[in-house]
Amino acid sequence: MKNAGSFDAREFRKCLSQYATGVTIVTSCNEAGPVGVTANSFSSLSLDPPLVLWSIGRSSRSFDAFVHASHFAINILASDQIDLSQKFSSKEVDKFIDVDWSPGVGGVPVLRKTLASIECRQQNIYDGGDHVIIVGRVERFSTFDGDGLVFAQGRYRIAGDHPGLANPASANNGEDMGVELPERFFMQLFWAFHYMSENFEEYRAAANVTLAQGRVLSRLYGTDGLTVQELVTRTYLTNRVCEDAIAELIEQGCIFQRDDGRYVLTDAGRARRESLAEGELRFEQRQLRSVSTEDVAATRRVLSQIIKLNGGNS
Amino acid sequence: MKNAGSFDAREFRKCLSQYATGVTIVTSCNEAGPVGVTANSFSSLSLDPPLVLWSIGRSSRSFDAFVHASHFAINILASDQIDLSQKFSSKEVDKFIDVDWSPGVGGVPVLRKTLASIECRQQNIYDGGDHVIIVGRVERFSTFDGDGLVFAQGRYRIAGDHPGLANPASANNGEDMGVELPERFFMQLFWAFHYMSENFEEYRAAANVTLAQGRVLSRLYGTDGLTVQELVTRTYLTNRVCEDAIAELIEQGCIFQRDDGRYVLTDAGRARRESLAEGELRFEQRQLRSVSTEDVAATRRVLSQIIKLNGGNS
Repeated sequence: MKNAGSFDAREFRKCLSQYATGVTIVTSCNEAGPVGVTANSFSSLSLDPPLVLWSIGRSSRSFDAFVHASHFAINILASDQIDLSQKFSSKEVDKFIDVDWSPGVGGVPVLRKTLASIECRQQNIYDGGDHVIIVGRVERFSTFDGDGLVFAQGRYRIAGDHPGLANPASANNGEDMGVELPERFFMQLFWAFHYMSENFEEYRAAANVTLAQGRVLSRLYGTDGLTVQELVTRTYLTNRVCEDAIAELIEQGCIFQRDDGRYVLTDAGRARRESLAEGELRFEQRQLRSVSTEDVAATRRVLSQIIKLNGGNS
Repeated sequence: MKNAGSFDAREFRKCLSQYATGVTIVTSCNEAGPVGVTANSFSSLSLDPPLVLWSIGRSSRSFDAFVHASHFAINILASDQIDLSQKFSSKEVDKFIDVDWSPGVGGVPVLRKTLASIECRQQNIYDGGDHVIIVGRVERFSTFDGDGLVFAQGRYRIAGDHPGLANPASANNGEDMGVELPERFFMQLFWAFHYMSENFEEYRAAANVTLAQGRVLSRLYGTDGLTVQELVTRTYLTNRVCEDAIAELIEQGCIFQRDDGRYVLTDAGRARRESLAEGELRFEQRQLRSVSTEDVAATRRVLSQIIKLNGGNS
């Protein structure tokens, strides 16, 4: 519990990140060309008239461009567009290189292969502390199939169906179906993963390492050092969360920054990672303790067959 | 692609719902007692000063209470709080019956067992078409462990880790770990589920039934009829999406409303559900076609053992 008196920005950001959001790239254009920023402050506002809002920081390099623009577009990212999200939240000068887009209402860049695009005329700008709220009147929109990229608790995620939907512990799942149906293999797969994942989180928390720290340790392990940007990409964390985890691991003596700028595990860091990996193995062994070795082998054969059949290569 | 000229509210809502959000209950209080509404318009706004925003419809019964309140609290819901979300989006008169809360800053109800609560003093109200934007200055906040409830594409969901994180097709997953580690059983489970689920969606779309329609058909099947509220609860859809699906299924002659108000499958509806169920079975059989019956049986034994071990009852 934090009071205004003891206001800690990192704690406040952590609290805010408990609220899941989609990820958008907001685009516009001016004489200098197209502009775009990654934003997760988008919100629908009004149906009649159709209005949406988002907010931009006063210190953003694109602040002036957006505040003075007559139009902007909200591009809602699909789950496979993390690279775009990272590109438009970076300090790259020309973010539109290699990006596939076409001009929409007022010439604003509408990105391709997103989940939706919403083209707006700027209607109002309101004060919002170190940000301003930009309200747009929707002039055109498009909706596409696919799954959205989700941002929650400092990392990129995807939205899965709610486990309660097919809970084997709930009613209406076989017995009142009128006909006898074998339990879906698919649902068994889902529930086994769901429960195992839940318990694994408990194990990880007990090992006293945050999820972000664990990811940084495991991605550094066995490499000759990685840059922050490589770590961000490989951990699916945001810059800020990844940098916080790096700072914490440096304080704990697990990693250090080499002269070339790359981060490297110390002996202590390697030992920590190995003990985490051993813990993971023990966790799996405990999960599988009451089934025979033959059944586990058969299960692995079936799972890798399903993966192979569907496009994975394991 | 929709232009402003052919603006369809249902299409526009569908487009907006492509953007995933968390789910909050915003609470306040006045002389008449506590008030609360479910909202997914929450957004962080500013760090310095700490500001957040949300919006409320001008036609909401709680509109006056929130507009005139000096304080409000944002309560971010955890993945197991769908019942609260539904309760506070319903027309119930006393929504706080059986709800566990304590008074926060300015007396606003702070709900228990949420993911986070953010207590605010009202700072600004801005016009937003059929809604108003309420900006609050954060005076106190609390963060708790857990997974958040996610709302996307008209239904309640949970945030899962991004599949790219442990993609068996990606590098840095074994070979450069320095030590030889067997591929995680857990990751195989995840990937098998992920790929199967992706392909199942394609199958479902090809069967020309929306996800919402499929859920309504399957929940009605074998019952003696359900109310809208029962369907909403069992399908994990929102009122609006569930009602749209019911209307579509009535138009298609698959269900009808009985005199007692409950919805019931017609013969055509039952046949449709049975053909969907058969399609699902065939889909599973295709997925498992290249593995032996014995291996499938062994896999089912292992999966149900994992589920049992971790608290499920299958």
